Amino acid sequence: MSTSDQDLVQYCRDVAENARKASAQLQLCSGELKNRWLNESAKALRDGVSSILEANALDIKEAPGYGLTDAQIDRLVLDEQRVDSIATALEQIAMLPDPVGQTIEGSVRPNGLEINKIRVPLGVVFFIYESRPNVTADAAAICLKSGNAVVLRGGKEAAHSSRAIVDILMAVAEQVGIPENAVQLVATTDREAVGHFLKLDDFIDVAIPRGGEGLIRRVSAEATMPVIKHFDGNCHVYVDKDACLDMATAIVVNAKCQRMGVCNACESLVIHRDIAEQAINQVVSALVKQGITIHGDETVCRLIDTAIAATFEDYATEYLGPSISVRVVDDVDSAIEHINRYSSRHTEAIVTSNIVTARKFVAAIDSSAVMINASTRFNDGGEFGLGAEIGISTDKFHARGPCGLQELTSYKYIVTGNGQIRN
Amino acid sequence: MSTSDQDLVQYCRDVAENARKASAQLQLCSGELKNRWLNESAKALRDGVSSILEANALDIKEAPGYGLTDAQIDRLVLDEQRVDSIATALEQIAMLPDPVGQTIEGSVRPNGLEINKIRVPLGVVFFIYESRPNVTADAAAICLKSGNAVVLRGGKEAAHSSRAIVDILMAVAEQVGIPENAVQLVATTDREAVGHFLKLDDFIDVAIPRGGEGLIRRVSAEATMPVIKHFDGNCHVYVDKDACLDMATAIVVNAKCQRMGVCNACESLVIHRDIAEQAINQVVSALVKQGITIHGDETVCRLIDTAIAATFEDYATEYLGPSISVRVVDDVDSAIEHINRYSSRHTEAIVTSNIVTARKFVAAIDSSAVMINASTRFNDGGEFGLGAEIGISTDKFHARGPCGLQELTSYKYIVTGNGQIRN
Repeated sequence: MSTSDQDLVQYCRDVAENARKASAQLQLCSGELKNRWLNESAKALRDGVSSILEANALDIKEAPGYGLTDAQIDRLVLDEQRVDSIATALEQIAMLPDPVGQTIEGSVRPNGLEINKIRVPLGVVFFIYESRPNVTADAAAICLKSGNAVVLRGGKEAAHSSRAIVDILMAVAEQVGIPENAVQLVATTDREAVGHFLKLDDFIDVAIPRGGEGLIRRVSAEATMPVIKHFDGNCHVYVDKDACLDMATAIVVNAKCQRMGVCNACESLVIHRDIAEQAINQVVSALVKQGITIHGDETVCRLIDTAIAATFEDYATEYLGPSISVRVVDDVDSAIEHINRYSSRHTEAIVTSNIVTARKFVAAIDSSAVMINASTRFNDGGEFGLGAEIGISTDKFHARGPCGLQELTSYKYIVTGNGQIRN
Repeated sequence: MSTSDQDLVQYCRDVAENARKASAQLQLCSGELKNRWLNESAKALRDGVSSILEANALDIKEAPGYGLTDAQIDRLVLDEQRVDSIATALEQIAMLPDPVGQTIEGSVRPNGLEINKIRVPLGVVFFIYESRPNVTADAAAICLKSGNAVVLRGGKEAAHSSRAIVDILMAVAEQVGIPENAVQLVATTDREAVGHFLKLDDFIDVAIPRGGEGLIRRVSAEATMPVIKHFDGNCHVYVDKDACLDMATAIVVNAKCQRMGVCNACESLVIHRDIAEQAINQVVSALVKQGITIHGDETVCRLIDTAIAATFEDYATEYLGPSISVRVVDDVDSAIEHINRYSSRHTEAIVTSNIVTARKFVAAIDSSAVMINASTRFNDGGEFGLGAEIGISTDKFHARGPCGLQELTSYKYIVTGNGQIRN
């Protein structure tokens, strides 16, 4: 290892170890203190808007050099209003109930022991993200509110803006008495650093990657600690024979077209054979009118002139754009089989007025959220009422679906007695 | 790879894939059906006692060849009464509430969407254990009751007994309509097989190792799926200056001596300096009378003739036998610091009548269970009222402390609407 490699390893270790120390102190911080930090930070971000916009201008200047498209640059740009939104988000997180210390379950045993299961922070979160500067403030706020120290590793594209934001958050932390190093922004955008952090499971309790599938696969493969993640969202809508087709049309068009580049958008439509002709003429045609390319099976291609024959690969594809696969199936069982084979276990929906069919579908579909007569787009922390979201999990271990404050906690048992010993 | 290696890889893959298929069917099995299987299995085990005892005789015959001690062989031996206990345990598990389908939380959103968070099985459990034949039946019962398929990999020492038990369980499964392959016993005791299973995260949702630390470290290092485990239990009792010394003596003697080879036994005693002399004379002397070797610091060695000077290694040691480390500290903060440094985050206890001190201790100690005025030996699924236990976790992710039926479940969101689309 060269000296600079050794320096980087040591730097990452120091950051992680400092986060662990901050985490121990944070466990003892009151909800009041954490909320004061959130509210004062919101104020300080508004007051410091000029320094943030200055830093942001540097990012924008460097953006073309990173090969960013105009649309990507647009999402990077901050102005006074966007900084105000970032501040408002912190104030909203302050208003959420504090998960730390909540009693999840409690009982008194026959021998008089009181057993209480109490929510505690996970400890240290390593958050790796590619996105916009607002994510920096959001992630710091969600982690701290849930009592966790956080190591933020943002993309180089927003490095200056993120630095300016974190500097403000940490200055406020010092003022109000939040432990030093509760929020740390990794000072290097060296890709190697991510790999070093992912080996530090002595200090980091969970890694949360947010960004493209490549980043998430890399983090999952290299992490020695648990990871909260989803790789992709190949979400399905199944239109049952007992569906109201007007409702199906509204749901499918919303799920596919309302926002195409997101993980809970619909990528695949499955239709019951008994209703296929009407559904294709109404639902699929509505998608065609929205400019969506149809990758359909035989029946679909027969009825829709512009449809392209679907391959098995199409059924497995998350388009994240104006395309959809459409398949006709014999019954709800075939629909379930098709979906459980191709879905990424993120979000699936059924449109039906038949409660027996709906119950069968939700029981058999093995995804983080199953919607009955509602758009897949609702699988979201805000829409579920979690108040804030650090990511969505398609795993079954620890947390599944949208991950808010509670999902960043663990628990411990507190057992109170008056001298009980075991027989 | 040789042909036999390839065969083994293929065999493991087939077992895991069959478990995955069984898991999908199990999700749809009613609680009534699972309970029928448990109760009929209990009956069948009692009826089949002669075949079990015959198989057990083979294990006992081969045991000396495996280098088992007399004590180990004794724990392997089954008789009519022990088989009856195994059967009774299944009947008790049948009586526990079914976790599958329970609503964890539910709300109605402003747009009328009903959001329900529903408990579902994790899927497929790979259970690796070294212990006695009763664990085979217990693990199968806990996994199935919680809706999970299980791949059992027992030690070679109990291979014949486990086979006989699983054969009976699966015959009953076929009779009552539980999916084939819901319970599978790995047919080889080849160590390589464990490694192959640990790579099959497409089919296995969680690995649970139970046995010596070597086994658990191996499973943790090689597993590609999440692991529920604890490595060891270096559990502490802290005797505060405000402790009742009679209570402290009873608790420490119980925690250390009631059963020494278990993970929730006390391995380290920490004493407040203000009470040190009395506590050493009373509490530590009581341990000496029980034949416990004392590894103590200066103060302890001065007061107890037979005490040996403790090293830092002693403070980190899980003795699992008649030894204990004892250290005097200046105050509760030093006690917390010492414990959080050396403990394995399993179970710690404080003896005090001071509620302020107790609150500080439980808030700062980062262990799966913290006891106030009670023995560490109570950290146990049965004692906590979980009814059954598949293991204890010292991790913070997913499950912490004793793991019963609930800890073998995940959840999914079921969202019910009447045509809601997202704005």
